[in-house]
Amino acid sequence: MASSTQGQVITCKAAVAYEPNKPLVIEDVQVAPPQAGEVRVKILFTALCHTDHYTWSGKDPEGLFPCILGHEAAGIVESVGEGVTDVQPGDHVIPCYQAECKECKFCKSGKTNLCGKVRSATGVGVMMNDLKSRFSVNGKPIYHFMGTSTFSQYTVVHDVSVAKISPQAPLDKVCLLGCGVSTGLGAVWNTAKVEAGAIVAVFGLGTVGLAVAEGAKAAGASRIIGIDIDSKKFDVAKNFGVTEFVNPKDHEKPIQQVLVDITDGGVDYSFECIGNVSVMRAALECCHKGWGTSVIVGVAASGQEISTRPFQLVTGRVWKGTAFGGFKSRTHVPWLVEKYLNKEIKVDEYITHSMNLSNINEAFHLLHEGGCLRCVLAMEH
Amino acid sequence: MASSTQGQVITCKAAVAYEPNKPLVIEDVQVAPPQAGEVRVKILFTALCHTDHYTWSGKDPEGLFPCILGHEAAGIVESVGEGVTDVQPGDHVIPCYQAECKECKFCKSGKTNLCGKVRSATGVGVMMNDLKSRFSVNGKPIYHFMGTSTFSQYTVVHDVSVAKISPQAPLDKVCLLGCGVSTGLGAVWNTAKVEAGAIVAVFGLGTVGLAVAEGAKAAGASRIIGIDIDSKKFDVAKNFGVTEFVNPKDHEKPIQQVLVDITDGGVDYSFECIGNVSVMRAALECCHKGWGTSVIVGVAASGQEISTRPFQLVTGRVWKGTAFGGFKSRTHVPWLVEKYLNKEIKVDEYITHSMNLSNINEAFHLLHEGGCLRCVLAMEH
Ligand SMILES: NC(=O)c1ccc[n+]([C@@H]2O[C@H](COP(=O)([O-])OP(=O)(O)OC[C@H]3O[C@@H](n4cnc5c(N)ncnc54)[C@H](O)[C@@H]3O)[C@@H](O)[C@H]2O)c1
Ligand SMILES: NC(=O)c1ccc[n+]([C@@H]2O[C@H](COP(=O)([O-])OP(=O)(O)OC[C@H]3O[C@@H](n4cnc5c(N)ncnc54)[C@H](O)[C@@H]3O)[C@@H](O)[C@H]2O)c1
Ligand SMILES: [Zn+2]
Ligand SMILES: [Zn+2]
Ligand SMILES: [Zn+2]
Ligand SMILES: [Zn+2]
Repeated sequence: MASSTQGQVITCKAAVAYEPNKPLVIEDVQVAPPQAGEVRVKILFTALCHTDHYTWSGKDPEGLFPCILGHEAAGIVESVGEGVTDVQPGDHVIPCYQAECKECKFCKSGKTNLCGKVRSATGVGVMMNDLKSRFSVNGKPIYHFMGTSTFSQYTVVHDVSVAKISPQAPLDKVCLLGCGVSTGLGAVWNTAKVEAGAIVAVFGLGTVGLAVAEGAKAAGASRIIGIDIDSKKFDVAKNFGVTEFVNPKDHEKPIQQVLVDITDGGVDYSFECIGNVSVMRAALECCHKGWGTSVIVGVAASGQEISTRPFQLVTGRVWKGTAFGGFKSRTHVPWLVEKYLNKEIKVDEYITHSMNLSNINEAFHLLHEGGCLRCVLAMEH
Repeated sequence: MASSTQGQVITCKAAVAYEPNKPLVIEDVQVAPPQAGEVRVKILFTALCHTDHYTWSGKDPEGLFPCILGHEAAGIVESVGEGVTDVQPGDHVIPCYQAECKECKFCKSGKTNLCGKVRSATGVGVMMNDLKSRFSVNGKPIYHFMGTSTFSQYTVVHDVSVAKISPQAPLDKVCLLGCGVSTGLGAVWNTAKVEAGAIVAVFGLGTVGLAVAEGAKAAGASRIIGIDIDSKKFDVAKNFGVTEFVNPKDHEKPIQQVLVDITDGGVDYSFECIGNVSVMRAALECCHKGWGTSVIVGVAASGQEISTRPFQLVTGRVWKGTAFGGFKSRTHVPWLVEKYLNKEIKVDEYITHSMNLSNINEAFHLLHEGGCLRCVLAMEH
């Protein structure tokens, strides 16, 4: 299926971040055709995630401006560059900030989902082929972001960074599987490998934390303790499997002590889904001596450090972290979409707001309001 | 085999630590008969380990004085208290500071070697049965240490804290399996589970670090990189399997960077066998992104903390620790003794000095000299 735009520069709408902390600007951007090993995708829906906000805010020392943010999206392949065989125009896809080439040292290790193939380019906002951007406004290049840049009606991604999914899946929903929901589920299933009967603590009941709870419930956890400083999160959390709630503000004791007390020694698994280094410490220290495993999911601000007494580890606790929940993106995103279609995992329930691309600045504000889990933007083609 | 001393108080020689940092005093101590669930052991050989020195030095906030130190030893059961069935007088044994009751939440978890049965007593220098000490000098109690107190010709231990070993084993050698050598081997085999072909870094080439190297060699590691600030350690380390040496003093770059450079991205497994919190950080950070696992074996001074950027964990490194190498003491110490008898593991090679109990203060000084790995004391019965 050859599209009429194949090989042409496409001019379309995108939200450009010109400067940190300044409103995004909806612009006409030029999107160059995909080069060898690249795929141009018509984005239909994109959600907003905290990583977009973090880079936008200027706190990310590796953030490059001007850029097009966005990494939790779904769309349809418009055209492909030379040598691309795994997807073709018309395929329904989810862009993946975590690539999977199946060939590099990382992919072949069988031990990690972190692919190294295109990282040197995506890390500096360009494409591998010529180390340049495919985006420009009036001839001036605009950086890519996370190898995805989904806040644009069209984007160009590496072929190793796009997962082909079932054409049956509603793109306005499954776009969430591009980041937050998958990360939470995978943190439980791949990184921690929670087993039936386990006691689990989830710190932070946003999308990622709720997906952790959902994953833990599916794994058969006996208790799923949700911890959040916003008590409004508690009601909705029940629907995702949280069995007990603790608000640190209700206690004088350090939260790790509260958890050790109510669990007769500590939890089997804990997950930090906030990005706060003191909570990361609490999450480790509330783990049971001898085997408790704590997984860091939240992304802390640049330069911040975690710490604890080494005795915590010598006495058997394990400290881990996860990126995209340990899922191999091109292999597992389609599998997660199938699970959604089979009603084995939730997705719709994480969507609290729907808007249009033109309201993206409003959507960014919503991210920090208690009532918002995920806001999905329609791309207004 | 009933001994003539059964049920009697035994008066014998022991090295008593009356005060932190003051020479040990060889004294006549009274050792009460074992009560229910207790075993009185005639110690024949004891080695010295850094944990003895640490508590002796006064830096251990939980150290209690006066006490009888020592936890790396071998001997023969003299008599047993009521209800003791697993050992009997005449059995050759190794006292185990890490108990194994096979009944508590920890022992039954299948996930840890940390037994909880007698910890509340051993942690405060007494026996479970009456929360009192079995040692006294002129009627004044002397605290137990680590549930072992092997710097005495006779000691009393809990039945869950003594491993029955082959009577063929030379006690002046296998006493080392009571701590350092077992810890190093187990850190590799149980905690890290190093696999064939792996690249391993060992920080600190004392007894524990050399046992890590030996364990890694047995596991088929392809490279075993030894790191020590004392270059004298390098020659002997070759015999234990170390294939390459790095002295941090020879480099301007941080040691983690040196290791990442020479291993094309980092090591698969690292082990901190020193007790230095900045080395613990380096040991984590020299691990390969995606899967590198760092195991803390060294015991840091009280109050010190480890730290790193959480990104180190989010990108797939794992931080662990080990106590007694994850070995279940009563199950695995006899197994290690068999491996020694079958020449599958080294022990003799760690013994650089042999002395008598009366020279214990001299032996303590030796611990801090480069040339000393383990010094074994004969108990001069
Ligand atoms: N590792 C990865 O691959 C990955 C992927 C996606 C997101 N993330 C990160 O996961 C984190 C969570 O994302 P999200 O979208 O669920 O965020 P969110 O803001 O929706 O949720 C965070 C929750 O934490 C709560 N919270 C804040 N401070 C707290 C504290 N001190 N104690 C207890 N609760 C507290 C908030 O009330 C909120 O409910 C973010 O840091 C994000 O960057 C990581
Ligand atoms: N976790 C456990 O169950 C367990 C059991 C036994 C011993 N330990 C601990 O293991 C540690 C090692 O014990 P050991 O008997 O082998 O000690 P050791 O003193 O014989 O060996 C330590 C080695 O580290 C080297 N070193 C010191 N500072 C260094 C630095 N900054 N960089 C590189 N090398 C450095 C020294 O030169 C020495 O060779 C101690 O902390 C001990 O308390 C732990
Ligand atoms: Zn995200
Ligand atoms: Zn790859
Ligand atoms: Zn020791
Ligand atoms: Zn036990």
